Amino acid sequence: MSSLLVDNIGELVTNVAGTGEGGRLGIRRGAAILVEEGRIAWLGPARYAPAADRRLDAEGAAVLPGFVDSHAHLVFAGDRAAEFAARMAGQPYTGGGIRTTVAATRAASDDVLRATVRRLRTEAMRQGTTTIEIKSGYGLNVTDEARSLRIATEVTEETTFLGAHVVPTEYADRPDDYVGLVCGPMLTAAAPYARWIDVFCERGAFDADHARAILTVGQAAGLGLRLHANQLGPGPGVQLAVELGAASADHCTHLSGADVEALAGSSTVATLLPGAEFSTRSPYPDARRLLDARVTVALATDCNPGSSYTSSMPFCVALAVREMGMTPAEAVWAATAGGARALRRTDVGVLRPGARADLMILDAPSHLHLAYRPGVPLIRQVLHNGVPQCRP
Amino acid sequence: MSSLLVDNIGELVTNVAGTGEGGRLGIRRGAAILVEEGRIAWLGPARYAPAADRRLDAEGAAVLPGFVDSHAHLVFAGDRAAEFAARMAGQPYTGGGIRTTVAATRAASDDVLRATVRRLRTEAMRQGTTTIEIKSGYGLNVTDEARSLRIATEVTEETTFLGAHVVPTEYADRPDDYVGLVCGPMLTAAAPYARWIDVFCERGAFDADHARAILTVGQAAGLGLRLHANQLGPGPGVQLAVELGAASADHCTHLSGADVEALAGSSTVATLLPGAEFSTRSPYPDARRLLDARVTVALATDCNPGSSYTSSMPFCVALAVREMGMTPAEAVWAATAGGARALRRTDVGVLRPGARADLMILDAPSHLHLAYRPGVPLIRQVLHNGVPQCRP
Ligand SMILES: [Zn+2]
Ligand SMILES: [Zn+2]
Repeated sequence: MSSLLVDNIGELVTNVAGTGEGGRLGIRRGAAILVEEGRIAWLGPARYAPAADRRLDAEGAAVLPGFVDSHAHLVFAGDRAAEFAARMAGQPYTGGGIRTTVAATRAASDDVLRATVRRLRTEAMRQGTTTIEIKSGYGLNVTDEARSLRIATEVTEETTFLGAHVVPTEYADRPDDYVGLVCGPMLTAAAPYARWIDVFCERGAFDADHARAILTVGQAAGLGLRLHANQLGPGPGVQLAVELGAASADHCTHLSGADVEALAGSSTVATLLPGAEFSTRSPYPDARRLLDARVTVALATDCNPGSSYTSSMPFCVALAVREMGMTPAEAVWAATAGGARALRRTDVGVLRPGARADLMILDAPSHLHLAYRPGVPLIRQVLHNGVPQCRP
Repeated sequence: MSSLLVDNIGELVTNVAGTGEGGRLGIRRGAAILVEEGRIAWLGPARYAPAADRRLDAEGAAVLPGFVDSHAHLVFAGDRAAEFAARMAGQPYTGGGIRTTVAATRAASDDVLRATVRRLRTEAMRQGTTTIEIKSGYGLNVTDEARSLRIATEVTEETTFLGAHVVPTEYADRPDDYVGLVCGPMLTAAAPYARWIDVFCERGAFDADHARAILTVGQAAGLGLRLHANQLGPGPGVQLAVELGAASADHCTHLSGADVEALAGSSTVATLLPGAEFSTRSPYPDARRLLDARVTVALATDCNPGSSYTSSMPFCVALAVREMGMTPAEAVWAATAGGARALRRTDVGVLRPGARADLMILDAPSHLHLAYRPGVPLIRQVLHNGVPQCRP
């Protein structure tokens, strides 16, 4: 097994607090990283670096843990560019367009779905995303939810069953029956391909009773819990997520003081998805308020064809700083270590011996440039399980 | 001389109004483009395409004219990432930081300046920018202004003398003397390397009398006129630009009704630079108001290390749609044909026989995706003077 030494690193963001400057970012200078068998075998001052078979010269650039995108919907067919253009011309986002994607997804072959998932996974990887969560939720029947998750498992371990994305048209007048389907045969078919279960808990989708029922049976089936909560308006989602011990409450755009308090006293991460607010021209969540209350915050893309068709974690970092009151350091932490916490992973989002060799080399000397240089493709090289992903 | 046929184009944006759907975008389907000697030799239905030596398969993607970035400041040394981080933590942008970059630029060798210009030019090209204007303005003495422009001419024909960017520290108590220097020896030294002259007409920089004096002598020296106007507050800049027949008034963030009227009745383009408002957390200009008044609008990056360190025209398009009331089609037009008008160029920003073969192939089926997929690197291939710029 060959070893790889990453050296000539300008600024190394480890996310190991207490080992260097930059607070939680644990910034080190003059460090090098030895990669063996897909893991970090050694990390320390470059002058003490062990011998290695190969060398990757970072040319003085910043090196960071790969992004952990803990919220993405990549299994779908078609796009909704026309709906986007109409919305930008003044039509509000209601979530109703999800049904358009459901129809296209059900009609698509496995190969078509697989091609889209792989294209978007590759696109995200080139932008530094080494860990990505992928949800179902555009099948909304037993066969197509299981199929969506099966295809998702081909590119990630972090798969989430989201049969409760929206009530499909054919169940429009009997939502209780649809919840029964989700909790019964659909869960049974989906669970073998899923690590997580999620519910879109929002007016017009699923209420708190439905969400509680679905998450409870999902947990009994061995799945971890996550929840789409408080995106379009105030609601019970965030407090339900905390009550059930969910790993993450996602969106958190409309929060009461009690919601913030509940999150602060919990192990539930608040995952903010500013791409959704950007693409639906909605007010952004108040990250500052959450951070000041010591809530753990993650940033993710919400990549989906309706409300946030971006796979770019750097873009989310830049938005978080511009629009949500985060410092560049807080945003970078949230997009790496924060995402890892939202997925309850300790082997990614951090650079230390034993962690996965998932990292990115920027075309820039500092993590600050991810917010300072918005829109610019700044990811020069990505290592995933120690393997370079971009052409040198 | 070898010929190249670009075919299998999904959506072709020509910016030739009246030739197809999409209004001013002049969208054609089923078209192909023949490139010879750096120009478009033929454009028409693919089934009638002439024979060519080589073929470039667009794989059904959208093909657009290359972006024309008509406002960029690429000749400088150092960066101001720390100032950016401080500003995001609440410190307002005053423009005072320009002097930091002036000191670094004067101290830098030609090679250091050249390396930065080339790096940023390449970065912009990879994001679809085939024409770019580059200003001086971080030298602010005779030698360094001329040097900045000489280096800029190595990568673009569109160079702008901006000796009147800010009054340098050594002239702080005698701004009239500095204006005399700009109008005299500095202009003489700079003019051979410049096509345009520009002034930062703003409270704290140059007032209307100074701007008028500088632009008038610049025009007499054979330079075209442009003006930084109405960025940080209301002011005389826009109306001065119109009065003098400038090609462009840039920023236009704070406009009175009279300013809009003046622009509407003129040949002066309003160049909007939303990257600056993004990176200084300032209110955006109202593009909708200008478009509704039939003002010609361009979009550009304002790429510079202080207030807008982005080289990404796709990012500016996405911002224009999200924040400035432009439709995706209007934003794409403004970033291509609009930029060309702001530079008074008829050979770029448009795809028709005789025009430069400057175009981009997207990783997307439609121009809509530039706004619909914010932050995602969507430029698959760029032709500049007919030559492919990205690896296949
Ligand atoms: Zn979602
Ligand atoms: Zn400028």
